[in-house]
Amino acid sequence: MTHTIATLASLLDVSYQGDGNRQIVKVSKWDAADSTSLVFLESREREVCLPENLQAACIIAPRDLLPKSVNAIFSDRPKLDFARAAALLQPRPAGRGERHPSAVIAPDAQIGNSVDIGPHVVVASGAAIGAGSILHAGVNIAAGCVLGKNCILYPHVVLYPAVAIGDRVTLHAGVVIGSDGFGYVFDGKEQIKFPQVGTLFIDDDVEIGSNTTIDRGSLGTTRIGAGTKVDNLVQIAHNVQIGKGVVIAAQTGISGSTVIEDYAVIGGQVGFGDHARVQSGAVIGSKAGVLPGKIVRGGEVYWGVPVRPLREFKRLNALFGRLPEMKSDIDALKETVAKIWTRINTTE
Amino acid sequence: MTHTIATLASLLDVSYQGDGNRQIVKVSKWDAADSTSLVFLESREREVCLPENLQAACIIAPRDLLPKSVNAIFSDRPKLDFARAAALLQPRPAGRGERHPSAVIAPDAQIGNSVDIGPHVVVASGAAIGAGSILHAGVNIAAGCVLGKNCILYPHVVLYPAVAIGDRVTLHAGVVIGSDGFGYVFDGKEQIKFPQVGTLFIDDDVEIGSNTTIDRGSLGTTRIGAGTKVDNLVQIAHNVQIGKGVVIAAQTGISGSTVIEDYAVIGGQVGFGDHARVQSGAVIGSKAGVLPGKIVRGGEVYWGVPVRPLREFKRLNALFGRLPEMKSDIDALKETVAKIWTRINTTE
Amino acid sequence: MTHTIATLASLLDVSYQGDGNRQIVKVSKWDAADSTSLVFLESREREVCLPENLQAACIIAPRDLLPKSVNAIFSDRPKLDFARAAALLQPRPAGRGERHPSAVIAPDAQIGNSVDIGPHVVVASGAAIGAGSILHAGVNIAAGCVLGKNCILYPHVVLYPAVAIGDRVTLHAGVVIGSDGFGYVFDGKEQIKFPQVGTLFIDDDVEIGSNTTIDRGSLGTTRIGAGTKVDNLVQIAHNVQIGKGVVIAAQTGISGSTVIEDYAVIGGQVGFGDHARVQSGAVIGSKAGVLPGKIVRGGEVYWGVPVRPLREFKRLNALFGRLPEMKSDIDALKETVAKIWTRINTTE
Repeated sequence: MTHTIATLASLLDVSYQGDGNRQIVKVSKWDAADSTSLVFLESREREVCLPENLQAACIIAPRDLLPKSVNAIFSDRPKLDFARAAALLQPRPAGRGERHPSAVIAPDAQIGNSVDIGPHVVVASGAAIGAGSILHAGVNIAAGCVLGKNCILYPHVVLYPAVAIGDRVTLHAGVVIGSDGFGYVFDGKEQIKFPQVGTLFIDDDVEIGSNTTIDRGSLGTTRIGAGTKVDNLVQIAHNVQIGKGVVIAAQTGISGSTVIEDYAVIGGQVGFGDHARVQSGAVIGSKAGVLPGKIVRGGEVYWGVPVRPLREFKRLNALFGRLPEMKSDIDALKETVAKIWTRINTTE
Repeated sequence: MTHTIATLASLLDVSYQGDGNRQIVKVSKWDAADSTSLVFLESREREVCLPENLQAACIIAPRDLLPKSVNAIFSDRPKLDFARAAALLQPRPAGRGERHPSAVIAPDAQIGNSVDIGPHVVVASGAAIGAGSILHAGVNIAAGCVLGKNCILYPHVVLYPAVAIGDRVTLHAGVVIGSDGFGYVFDGKEQIKFPQVGTLFIDDDVEIGSNTTIDRGSLGTTRIGAGTKVDNLVQIAHNVQIGKGVVIAAQTGISGSTVIEDYAVIGGQVGFGDHARVQSGAVIGSKAGVLPGKIVRGGEVYWGVPVRPLREFKRLNALFGRLPEMKSDIDALKETVAKIWTRINTTE
Repeated sequence: MTHTIATLASLLDVSYQGDGNRQIVKVSKWDAADSTSLVFLESREREVCLPENLQAACIIAPRDLLPKSVNAIFSDRPKLDFARAAALLQPRPAGRGERHPSAVIAPDAQIGNSVDIGPHVVVASGAAIGAGSILHAGVNIAAGCVLGKNCILYPHVVLYPAVAIGDRVTLHAGVVIGSDGFGYVFDGKEQIKFPQVGTLFIDDDVEIGSNTTIDRGSLGTTRIGAGTKVDNLVQIAHNVQIGKGVVIAAQTGISGSTVIEDYAVIGGQVGFGDHARVQSGAVIGSKAGVLPGKIVRGGEVYWGVPVRPLREFKRLNALFGRLPEMKSDIDALKETVAKIWTRINTTE
C-alpha cells in the first residue's frame, strides 16, 4: 500500500517537512533505500551522510537531527514510528476466502468469512476458524480447536485437539500447540504417564516463532496472555501461565506450572524450573537459569545460573576473573604470616 | 470409558470406601472437579477443604487423610494410582482401520490390521506399519521403515529411511527420526561429509516430545531403550545409546556416541559432549554440562558446567556468592600483615 | 555404486596393496564389516586384531599400521579418505524428473530438468527450482523463492517467500528458512512489530540440520556462506552473517546481526548476543555465551559464559573448585593474624 508523506505523518499523528505529496512505497534500511523508501534515524551517527548521499524518499527522525532540505517526518521515537509506518505501508495480510481443493475440512467445522485455506490443510471435526484468518499449506487443526479472527498460521503449524486461540494470533512455521506435557510417575519399574488432558489458551495478538512447542495443561490450562511475543524454538511446558506483553527470546525453556507475569522480558536460552514465578516487569538475561519455585522480583535485571540481580552478577563475575590473583594473594599471605610467626617465636 | 468406583479400585488392586456404584468419567484437578471426577490428594495441604467443598465423585488418597464421609479409593501412592486410573478411564487410542484417500501409500508397504492413516500421510516403499497404529495427518514414513503395533505418530512426524520402531511408541508432532548425523572431516578447504549411513532403533513404549530430533548412526546404530521418555526439542546425535526407562527433559542435547544408561534422569537444557557415559540411575540437573568422554557415576545427583556432585556444586555456588567477602578479607589481611611486618621490623 | 579397490585408490589418488580387483560395495564400521566393506584405521588401537579377525574387503589406513597380508588403501588421512570413498560408493542422490500428482505447483513456477517433486509438495508462484533438485514430501516453497541445482530438501522443509538458495544445498526435515525475525518496539502498552521484510541467502554446499530455524533479514539480508554446516535445532536470527566453511553444532542460538567469519567452529548450545563478531578460525566450546557486541578473536579456543580463552577458563574453573580451600585458608589466616596481633600488642 502506498502513502504520501503527508498521509503517513497524519496517520502517525506527527508533523513533517518537505514534499508532502511524495509517495512512500516501502521501508528500507539506510544503504538499500531508493526514491520510494522510508528510512529512520535515531541518533547523530548517520548525520554526516545527510543530505548528500540520501537516496530515501523520506526520513523519520527527531527534528533536531534533520537539515531543512530533506523530506522528513518528525518523531521523538523514530524506531517506533518507523515500525508503525511499516504496518501502514504493508498491512497484515487478511484472508480472501480462497480454499485449495486439496484441503481436508470436516463437514461440521465452522469456517468464518474470508478465511484462506491452503493446500493440504486439515481442519478436523468441530473446529472453528474465525473470519479473515489464513491457514497456510499443511496446517493441521485438530478436533474442537477454536481460532479467532485474522489469525495467520504459517505452513505446517499443528494444533492438538481443543486448543483455543484468540484474534490476530500469528503462529510461524512448524509451531506445535497443545501437545502432551512431560509428566510421568515412576512405579519402580516403568514411567507411568500422568494424564495430559488439560487445555491451552492463547490470547489475542500473540506471535509465536518457528518450531516453538507449547504443551497443553496436564489437568488445568496452559495460558499465553494477550500481546505476548515468543521467538523460535522455545519450549513452554504444561500449565505454564504467561501474562500480557511478555517477550521471550529464542530457545528459552519454561518448565511446568511456572508463571511469567505481564511485561516481563526474557532473553534467549533461559531455563526456568517448575513452579517458579517471574514478577511483572522483571528482565532476565540470556542463558540465565531460574530454580524451581524461585520468585524473581519485578523491576530488576537478572543474570546467571542461578539468577542473581545483574549488579551482583557483574561483581561476582569480575571477582571470578580475579581468582588467580586472590589465590596468589592467599599464598603470599600464608608465606608472610608463617615468617612472622617464626620470627615472633624466635624473638621471644 | 466410564468405571464405577468399585471397578476402578478393583482394577487398581486397592480398597475403597463409600458408594462403590458411583460412576467416574474423568480425572480432574481439584478446583475443576465435578460430580463425575476423580481427584487425588497426596498430603494434608488440602484436607482443610474436606469434605465441605468437595465437588469430586471420588478421591484417591492415603486412608489417614480421608474423613469417612467421602467416596474414596485408598492408595499409598495416590499420584501413581491416579495416573493408572486416568489410563483406565481414557485408554490409549488405537487405530480402527481408517485410511484417508489423500494418503500416498506405496503398493509394497505392509499395513497391519486396524491401522489409521490420516490425510496427506506418505508411507514409502517397503515400509511396514504394525497393527493398531495411528498415523496422523502429514506423517512421513520413508522407505524400509518398520513400525511396531499400536504406535501413535502425531502430525508431521518424519521418519528417514530404514528406521526401526517398537510397539506402543508415541512420537509427537514434528519429531524427526533418523536424519543425518553431524559429522564432517575438514580437508583444509572444505568440510567433507562423514558417511551417515547407519540406522536407528527405538524400543517399545518410548514417548518422544514435539519437534525433537534424533539422528541415525553414522556407521552404527542410534538406540533408544524401552520405556524411555524424551521431552520436546531435544537433540540426540548419531550413535547415541540410551537405556531403558530414561527420562530426558526439554531442550537437552546429547552429542555423538554418548551412552545414557538405564533409569538415568536428565533435566532440561543439559548438554553432553561426545563419548560421555552416564551410569545407571544418575540424576543430572537442568542446564548441566557433561564434558566429552566424562563418566558420570550412578546413584548421585549432579549439577553445573562442568557437572559436579550436587553437594559440591551447592557449596561452590555458595562460596561464589561470598567472593566479595573473601576479597575484602584478603585485602584486610594484606593490610594487617603489612602493618605487623612493619611493626616487627621497627621493633627489632 | 560398486568400485574395485584399484579404482577407489585411483580416484582417491593414493596407492594400495593386495587384490585390486576386489569389489567394494559400502563403508562399514569395524565390527559390522563384511566381505564387501571398506573400513578405516587411524591409529594402532585396532592393530592387534589384524588380520585374524578381519571381515572387511579393504582397510584405509597409514601404510605403517598395516601388515602385508591384507587388502588395503594407503592414506595418511584415513578418516578423510574414508569419507571421500563413501561419497564415491554412495553418491549424493539426484532428481530424475519424478513429480507426484498430489504436488501443487504454481503454473508460473520454473521447474528445472530432472527435478523430483514428492507428494503434497507446494511450489508457489514465481518460485524457481534448479535442475536435479529433490523436494521430498510436504516441502513448502513460498512465492518467489529461488533454489539452485542439485539441492535436497527433506520432508516438510518450509521456505518463506523470496528466499534465495545456492547449488547442492541440503535442508533436513522440518527446517524453516526465512521466517520473521524477532523484533518489536514497545510503545508503552504494546509490542509493535518491527518490519521483517528483508531477505535471506544461503550459498552453495550448505547443509542445515533438522528443525533448525533461520530468520530472514528485518530490512537487510541474512546470509549463510558457502560450505557452512549447521546441525539440528539451531536458531539463526535476522541479519546474521555467517561466512564460508563454518561449523555450528546443535541447539546453538545466534542473535540478530551477529557475524561469524569463515571457518569458525561453534559448539552446541552456544548463545550469541546480538551484534557480536566471531573472527575467522575461532573455536567456541559448547554451552559458551558471547555477550552482545563482543568481538571474539580468531585462532583461539574459547569457553564459558561469558567466553574466555580456554586456558584462562580452565585455570578459573580449577580455582572455582578450590574455593572451599581458599575460604578455609582465609579463615585460618584471619585467626593466625589475630593471634599475632594480640601477641605483638601484648609483648610491647
